[in-house]
Amino acid sequence: MTDLAKPPVFVLVRPQLGENIGKAARAMLNFGLTEMRLVAPRDGWPNPSAGPSAAGADIVLDQAKVFKTTAEAVADCTNIYATTVRKRGDAKPVVSPEEAAAEIIVHPGRSAFLFGREASGLDIQDVAMARAILTVPINPDFGSLNLAQAIILCAYEWSKTQALAQPTLEEQLPPAPQADLDGLIHHFGQLLEPKGYFLPDSRADATKRTLRNVLTKPRWNHLEIRTLRGVLSSLGRQDRN
Amino acid sequence: MTDLAKPPVFVLVRPQLGENIGKAARAMLNFGLTEMRLVAPRDGWPNPSAGPSAAGADIVLDQAKVFKTTAEAVADCTNIYATTVRKRGDAKPVVSPEEAAAEIIVHPGRSAFLFGREASGLDIQDVAMARAILTVPINPDFGSLNLAQAIILCAYEWSKTQALAQPTLEEQLPPAPQADLDGLIHHFGQLLEPKGYFLPDSRADATKRTLRNVLTKPRWNHLEIRTLRGVLSSLGRQDRN
Repeated sequence: MTDLAKPPVFVLVRPQLGENIGKAARAMLNFGLTEMRLVAPRDGWPNPSAGPSAAGADIVLDQAKVFKTTAEAVADCTNIYATTVRKRGDAKPVVSPEEAAAEIIVHPGRSAFLFGREASGLDIQDVAMARAILTVPINPDFGSLNLAQAIILCAYEWSKTQALAQPTLEEQLPPAPQADLDGLIHHFGQLLEPKGYFLPDSRADATKRTLRNVLTKPRWNHLEIRTLRGVLSSLGRQDRN
Repeated sequence: MTDLAKPPVFVLVRPQLGENIGKAARAMLNFGLTEMRLVAPRDGWPNPSAGPSAAGADIVLDQAKVFKTTAEAVADCTNIYATTVRKRGDAKPVVSPEEAAAEIIVHPGRSAFLFGREASGLDIQDVAMARAILTVPINPDFGSLNLAQAIILCAYEWSKTQALAQPTLEEQLPPAPQADLDGLIHHFGQLLEPKGYFLPDSRADATKRTLRNVLTKPRWNHLEIRTLRGVLSSLGRQDRN
């Protein structure tokens, strides 16, 4: 199977109830999706509460991988969606499940959906990792989608594309894996820190997020990232005269 | 409001658990649908178990009407779908939620979805009332949609046809004028020149083109360009200690 054909990964960030993880697995498998990743599940993993609510979707739970951080969970992904019910003014594209599915089937790398904790959703750092915001267009007066419902809509829209999906050869290099992008962002940080760029401390997190967003937008491939790493290495050197 | 514009009715036939009726109401209202009809609910109506799982969708429960038979529940409807996970060999059209939604918005009368009892689904007499079978295209090896999930997919597809759905496309700032981009590229050049980045001279033009291509790709807006100019100004400064 080529990367092109790979179905999306569902990443549950700091999920709380095992029961909800089980329901998420059931929602995924209904549409043939099996790859679940868990970031720091509150009650550890495996969780005995997950199985009963999975209604037989044990294969999803058995294969679920656990990560300490969101960054590690999506390190091999190149097209990441942060699911949220709220619009955020952070200049990322906002797409519907249908639009995301249409993007995923032509994207030449791994795609991932990030889902936040049951009550509070994704935090702002998790959202910053994503290329785009995924929002379900919902009743503006009553938005009450739970985790499994958000997942089933994403999975359903993806499955609808499968009958139509035709592997098309992409001429362009795919975006670099998230780990490469993280390396670039880290390199920027190393150079900028001693310059006082992130001061005052009270603004440091926001400044870092802004920089991450600016550098996430381009979807650079690995050669472009390598070029920029070379640029930064040069900038870190002393002048030649 | 004309009949043409009327949203579909959701008919729960002999539902068992109040909790599931509440979840159904929640699923409907997420997509702006409010008209629920109950046929012979096992535990009577109102059912105190329904409210808590409706998560605030009380308007749907409060307005729900109860009927003794399916025939009475759909007496005013002219376009009825029997939802079932199994295809039945009874010579009715079989449609997906998407196809049903497309039919409903042009149908000049009331449309209704029939949903069966949790474990056993619709019985053969109920199916016989319907013009068409509605089936969600699902993983053939794992079909485990519950009532609320089947409802949410029907409601979601209907809402996609409606203008009331909250638009997802966020206004994004356009790419910055070329002059802004040129300013950024020039700024990079000024910092990189004394580091020897463009050496040897014979490669300088190609190296500059590569850098320009990498920086042109993102289509940054003017705010993002401004951020990066700030980054470069910081990098051009002496370290603070």
